Amino acid sequence: MSDRLIFFDTTLRDGEQVPGCQLNTIEKIEVARQLEQLGVDVIEAGFPASSPGDFNSVVEISKAVTWPVICALTRAVESDIDAAAEALKYAKYKRIHTGIGTSEEHIRYKFNSTREQILERAVAAVRYAAKKKVDEIEFYAEDAGRTDNEYLARVTEAVIKAGATIINIPDTTGYCLPDEYGAKIKYLMEHVDALSSGKAILSTHCHNDLGMATANTMSGILNGARQVEVTINGVGERAGNTSLEEIAMILKCHHATIPVDFNINTTRICSTSRLVSSLMNMPVQPNKAIVGRNAFAHSSGIHQDGVLKNTQTYEIMDPKDVGLDENNIVMTARSGRAALKHRLSILGIEKDGEALDRIYEAFLKLADKKKELNDDDILMLAGADTAATKHVRLDGLQVTTGKGVTPIAAIKLSVAGESFEAASTGNGPLDASIKALKQIIRRDMTLKEMTIQAISKGSDDVCKVHMQVENGGHLYYGFGSDTDIVTASVEAYIDCINKFKKK
Amino acid sequence: MSDRLIFFDTTLRDGEQVPGCQLNTIEKIEVARQLEQLGVDVIEAGFPASSPGDFNSVVEISKAVTWPVICALTRAVESDIDAAAEALKYAKYKRIHTGIGTSEEHIRYKFNSTREQILERAVAAVRYAAKKKVDEIEFYAEDAGRTDNEYLARVTEAVIKAGATIINIPDTTGYCLPDEYGAKIKYLMEHVDALSSGKAILSTHCHNDLGMATANTMSGILNGARQVEVTINGVGERAGNTSLEEIAMILKCHHATIPVDFNINTTRICSTSRLVSSLMNMPVQPNKAIVGRNAFAHSSGIHQDGVLKNTQTYEIMDPKDVGLDENNIVMTARSGRAALKHRLSILGIEKDGEALDRIYEAFLKLADKKKELNDDDILMLAGADTAATKHVRLDGLQVTTGKGVTPIAAIKLSVAGESFEAASTGNGPLDASIKALKQIIRRDMTLKEMTIQAISKGSDDVCKVHMQVENGGHLYYGFGSDTDIVTASVEAYIDCINKFKKK
Repeated sequence: MSDRLIFFDTTLRDGEQVPGCQLNTIEKIEVARQLEQLGVDVIEAGFPASSPGDFNSVVEISKAVTWPVICALTRAVESDIDAAAEALKYAKYKRIHTGIGTSEEHIRYKFNSTREQILERAVAAVRYAAKKKVDEIEFYAEDAGRTDNEYLARVTEAVIKAGATIINIPDTTGYCLPDEYGAKIKYLMEHVDALSSGKAILSTHCHNDLGMATANTMSGILNGARQVEVTINGVGERAGNTSLEEIAMILKCHHATIPVDFNINTTRICSTSRLVSSLMNMPVQPNKAIVGRNAFAHSSGIHQDGVLKNTQTYEIMDPKDVGLDENNIVMTARSGRAALKHRLSILGIEKDGEALDRIYEAFLKLADKKKELNDDDILMLAGADTAATKHVRLDGLQVTTGKGVTPIAAIKLSVAGESFEAASTGNGPLDASIKALKQIIRRDMTLKEMTIQAISKGSDDVCKVHMQVENGGHLYYGFGSDTDIVTASVEAYIDCINKFKKK
Repeated sequence: MSDRLIFFDTTLRDGEQVPGCQLNTIEKIEVARQLEQLGVDVIEAGFPASSPGDFNSVVEISKAVTWPVICALTRAVESDIDAAAEALKYAKYKRIHTGIGTSEEHIRYKFNSTREQILERAVAAVRYAAKKKVDEIEFYAEDAGRTDNEYLARVTEAVIKAGATIINIPDTTGYCLPDEYGAKIKYLMEHVDALSSGKAILSTHCHNDLGMATANTMSGILNGARQVEVTINGVGERAGNTSLEEIAMILKCHHATIPVDFNINTTRICSTSRLVSSLMNMPVQPNKAIVGRNAFAHSSGIHQDGVLKNTQTYEIMDPKDVGLDENNIVMTARSGRAALKHRLSILGIEKDGEALDRIYEAFLKLADKKKELNDDDILMLAGADTAATKHVRLDGLQVTTGKGVTPIAAIKLSVAGESFEAASTGNGPLDASIKALKQIIRRDMTLKEMTIQAISKGSDDVCKVHMQVENGGHLYYGFGSDTDIVTASVEAYIDCINKFKKK
């Protein structure tokens, strides 16, 4: 059995299907490039048959990255497999991930079928995928966590014979406990010859409904699985998937007793976590393992004393190992373009040419208002840049509001180069501004959710606004930033509008 | 060995020592009462020797709850034990929790001592605590996770002989993996007679640095531990402690194979989670197991299909089991006072008399502006009420801001009943307002962090602002809400000021 563990990242597939987490293709490419730098072996890029958008994302991600294997998900359905093969056209290394539910619950209620019929469909799907001449075929036995082991071993054997070399054993409902999940992996390793001989490998895919995703994945590795399906920050449906960063750091800390090798560059963990959290609008709680804001902070008196006497007393990891630079470098108006480019790169953002010029210009303007810019400021500038050359643009805004005052707003917009003005009262400054905006842009749209953060410190600081606006049954995600809280909110609203599908 | 598992909640001790999470005594009492309703067996109320505030909290919590055991933490130091016994004076059931570091790292670097000396100090502390005539003595072997098992067994035996009946085995650094932690518990169960005979029990206390706190705790239970030390939402230092809600739901879901009994009323989980998150200003990430916003949400097409065909296909838990009422009941201006009181109680807030009258009045006002009020609105009203009769009060605010406009604010404050007015420009509307406020209230204070949420939907909705302001080296947490975003922010700032310690 090989001692190489394959990291299969499904942030862009299982993670991305959560409502409110949807990314556009440009954002997906940004995440994929970051995953490549992090060193993941396989990127699951989407489910091409599910929508033209997903199909296109797989195509574009395939073009954008060089060495990770690109994987496309399918059901055990020929048209799905056709779409996956087509979408993977440009990938250097292609993998089709097909499968079907194998638990009694799935066989009976979802497929209204029998074990024998499901086994036949599984084999047929793998055989069909094999004709597509991709580099690798992975098979998933959906709801394997609740599938009878003996039947699961028969399915595994049959699909390996048909051409699959990676067999994914998902705990789809997140119900398993580590001993149970590990025992399942062990049973398969012992009862399927092609696994013990190393002809094929098992993959874990765990969900966190009971807070056990990481523990189950570790139990899978200890019992012989050699691929782990994970997401950044553990994003994913319901309580999410196994966190990439937790598995990578457990293996790094416990390498002496669990000697598997893997390719993750852990110093890229923090920047990847930030990028995914910000693009997906999925906050990471302060007490999240490895990547939470407090993960490396020591506080209580007793502990601090210990830390001062010897860091070994309480620290098991070096913050530098996860790319957390405690010397959050401060930049000023005197920092050059190259320094900015370098800092952006440390933060996981690669910018060049005109894009870098635009960010540098915005950087100098902000550095003029605010003497010292930290990493959050720089991330904000990079994010805002993408919104620079849009269809709808905010040219001016004047708002009066307060307590015992009727909020009123006057707005000036440029829409496809043409100028418009409108004014309105409202329940608050944002409500007045949006009512004024709606007099100019007459589309059916509703603000669904917003979060505002004063980034860095002090009331004179930059506000960062994340927003979701609904239009035509779809949710669009927007971002805005400004020292003025109302302007930042209106910018976020306009960012959403600029993402609406053309009618 | 008993099949009864004791839930020991340390949200108010290990959870509360995180910077920014500090609660005042009134807030601690609110959490303690909620924990009592949730059914925890033991509430660790504080570390009385650490500060007069902590001492006082233990006293007040002791008075406020009826049936849970109240526990006070100490070092293995006589004056600490004196303070703990004194602070527990009013508790119906009293427990002293004393202990010392037992790993080589702690013995050498923290105490500059030897194994024999540490053993003597441990025994002496327990004997001293035994003289205080409390109901129970618990002993913690700090950093037990890295302590040699043979020595740990000797310490365990000795402190039980000295009078301890609960021995806490903390994985202080969060380094252990489940098999290792479970093996440690098993070793102690097999090598210490007083444990196998049931004269004393072992307690788990796990940290989540590698995402393993829940798995380690479960491994402890499976190997014989009969108390778990947990916190709500897994709050705690660094990556936090084991989550109460995860352990309770694992035991509920897996009761058939892990037949331990426990007293938690799981339907109180969601309301307790919300209360702790909001008072401690510790957001829960959407993909947090059990209590995250998405924990019970199904999204992907494949899955939704399965859910529609049969909920059994994907759901392992009933949202009602954790008190998540999907029929988020909407209230209107026609809802009566009793209905409001009932709804507040479901949300974990008990209000009566004048406080209820004030909230009902605010409720009617808001219901007038906004036709339908949901749970978030009601929680906001209840939270805002506490801020009603304060030293500093916002009487009026007028702000003009926008893009291409110099932000300007005029503010009217009442300070101890006297009226003041001031005006200022600023970088944004909040900056201008706070600069104006600072002309009236001349204290050294800095805005450290803020989060604003538009609760419910639509731009005409209520904004909820959480803020941290630093004064005299302390961080104060404040909350404000209003349909006007700037007013809500200024209210939050004033809420912080009203919490400042008197000079």
